[in-house]
Amino acid sequence: MTKYIEDSTLVRVRFSESDAMGVVWHGNYLKYFEDGRERLGDQFGLSYLNIAEAGYVAPIVHVDVKYLSPITFGQEVKVICRLIDSKAAKIIHEYEIWNNSTNQISCKGRTEQVFLDDKSRSLELTYPEFYMDWKSKLPWKTL
Amino acid sequence: MTKYIEDSTLVRVRFSESDAMGVVWHGNYLKYFEDGRERLGDQFGLSYLNIAEAGYVAPIVHVDVKYLSPITFGQEVKVICRLIDSKAAKIIHEYEIWNNSTNQISCKGRTEQVFLDDKSRSLELTYPEFYMDWKSKLPWKTL
Amino acid sequence: MTKYIEDSTLVRVRFSESDAMGVVWHGNYLKYFEDGRERLGDQFGLSYLNIAEAGYVAPIVHVDVKYLSPITFGQEVKVICRLIDSKAAKIIHEYEIWNNSTNQISCKGRTEQVFLDDKSRSLELTYPEFYMDWKSKLPWKTL
Amino acid sequence: MTKYIEDSTLVRVRFSESDAMGVVWHGNYLKYFEDGRERLGDQFGLSYLNIAEAGYVAPIVHVDVKYLSPITFGQEVKVICRLIDSKAAKIIHEYEIWNNSTNQISCKGRTEQVFLDDKSRSLELTYPEFYMDWKSKLPWKTL
Repeated sequence: MTKYIEDSTLVRVRFSESDAMGVVWHGNYLKYFEDGRERLGDQFGLSYLNIAEAGYVAPIVHVDVKYLSPITFGQEVKVICRLIDSKAAKIIHEYEIWNNSTNQISCKGRTEQVFLDDKSRSLELTYPEFYMDWKSKLPWKTL
Repeated sequence: MTKYIEDSTLVRVRFSESDAMGVVWHGNYLKYFEDGRERLGDQFGLSYLNIAEAGYVAPIVHVDVKYLSPITFGQEVKVICRLIDSKAAKIIHEYEIWNNSTNQISCKGRTEQVFLDDKSRSLELTYPEFYMDWKSKLPWKTL
Repeated sequence: MTKYIEDSTLVRVRFSESDAMGVVWHGNYLKYFEDGRERLGDQFGLSYLNIAEAGYVAPIVHVDVKYLSPITFGQEVKVICRLIDSKAAKIIHEYEIWNNSTNQISCKGRTEQVFLDDKSRSLELTYPEFYMDWKSKLPWKTL
Repeated sequence: MTKYIEDSTLVRVRFSESDAMGVVWHGNYLKYFEDGRERLGDQFGLSYLNIAEAGYVAPIVHVDVKYLSPITFGQEVKVICRLIDSKAAKIIHEYEIWNNSTNQISCKGRTEQVFLDDKSRSLELTYPEFYMDWKSKLPWKTL
């Protein structure tokens, strides 16, 4: 049983994000993931700035992306982003990028972040207190 | 026993590749992977253009990246790129990004590409002939 | 007396668009200009794809940008984009980027595009017919 | 009579730097300018980090670029960067981007930077002392 929260956002594909094959360059999907992550944080009240104010940074330590169908310039994509509950002191997100122009799924992804103390840069082995507080108030769904 | 070929290239980290935390933004590592892949292709005589001329495209279908230590602006990185032999009709590369300023490994990655017919966009289930020819002449090492 | 049409669009600044100084990297403003140009084209019925279908490309030949105040991650910007009427066979846009979080203007810019025949790549010295038609129906304002 | 110092560097065009028209996206030239500027700073002993250590930041306040011919993926470009002496308290660079594959000039550009006090963010109306020292030792040429 997986607990999660989810939100989605729309992104317009930029001309500069296409590559010489006329489709979105694979590395640019990580920007769309970031858009989804930001949106989820906005909706549920947690941002990069909150993390910084609490004295932590939360770098990405693992990215996994499966590409299923291409996206071209001018198409609109829907980014579905889920925060997945985890026992380990990690922030785990899963993503689906849907091509709204074709109704096809374009990509599935996953990112993992850890907490580092902003000063010592040492890895936090348990969740920081501010994050546990935030997590405890979330309207989790189960999958 | 894994057969592979390997090469490495140096990349200077651009100011524009750092993010607001002062380190290379995680998505930009995919550009360094691409630099490594290009370099390997140059050394062994296969490029994106050769693939196009043979009537194929080879999109990336899977990316996996583990981030181990950050890189900052002005540091020089070494990209080690290995082409891994595969039975399946895939182009599989593995990468190591080393931070030359600190002698630390910064990241490990893996990409998978498939062959599509350029016109029909259908998936090739076996390696195209031009690619088999190229592969057969490589000075494979074993791991 | 300058004739123009104008529209504006909102853009959320991405984390990856900041640089190591914590502000939007100066080159990324050209992406916001592109967002403004796309939006204006959407509103008035002209896109990159229309130009391509008519047998032309319209590359940018001149960019001029003045930076007035910085923008940081998470801030929202308003892109005002104006198409300026021109006797010469050029597409001329002017831009203002406003920082909505501070109500300060962040940047002013200008781009010029020319028409090239898509096949011969020769410069068009007069406006293509499809573009003259489109221009003639615009609800021009005067400045 | 203009006093200047000059250096050049080679840049390999990345796949991800091309756009859907198959040529380098116009905004990416600003990365090549930055490569040229960095290289010039390396050769003559001034870097972004030196400026930071002296207590200043030197943001770009004006960019002007004229695009003369396109560059495609895989081509190599030569970036010529000149620091132009100036009475005003500005860092002024001029750039030429040459396409080594075609021996054509691809673009001409100019950037202006000012000095801000890193803490107060106030504009320096005269050159900081560390910069005057550096300038006074340069092997200026005249144009």
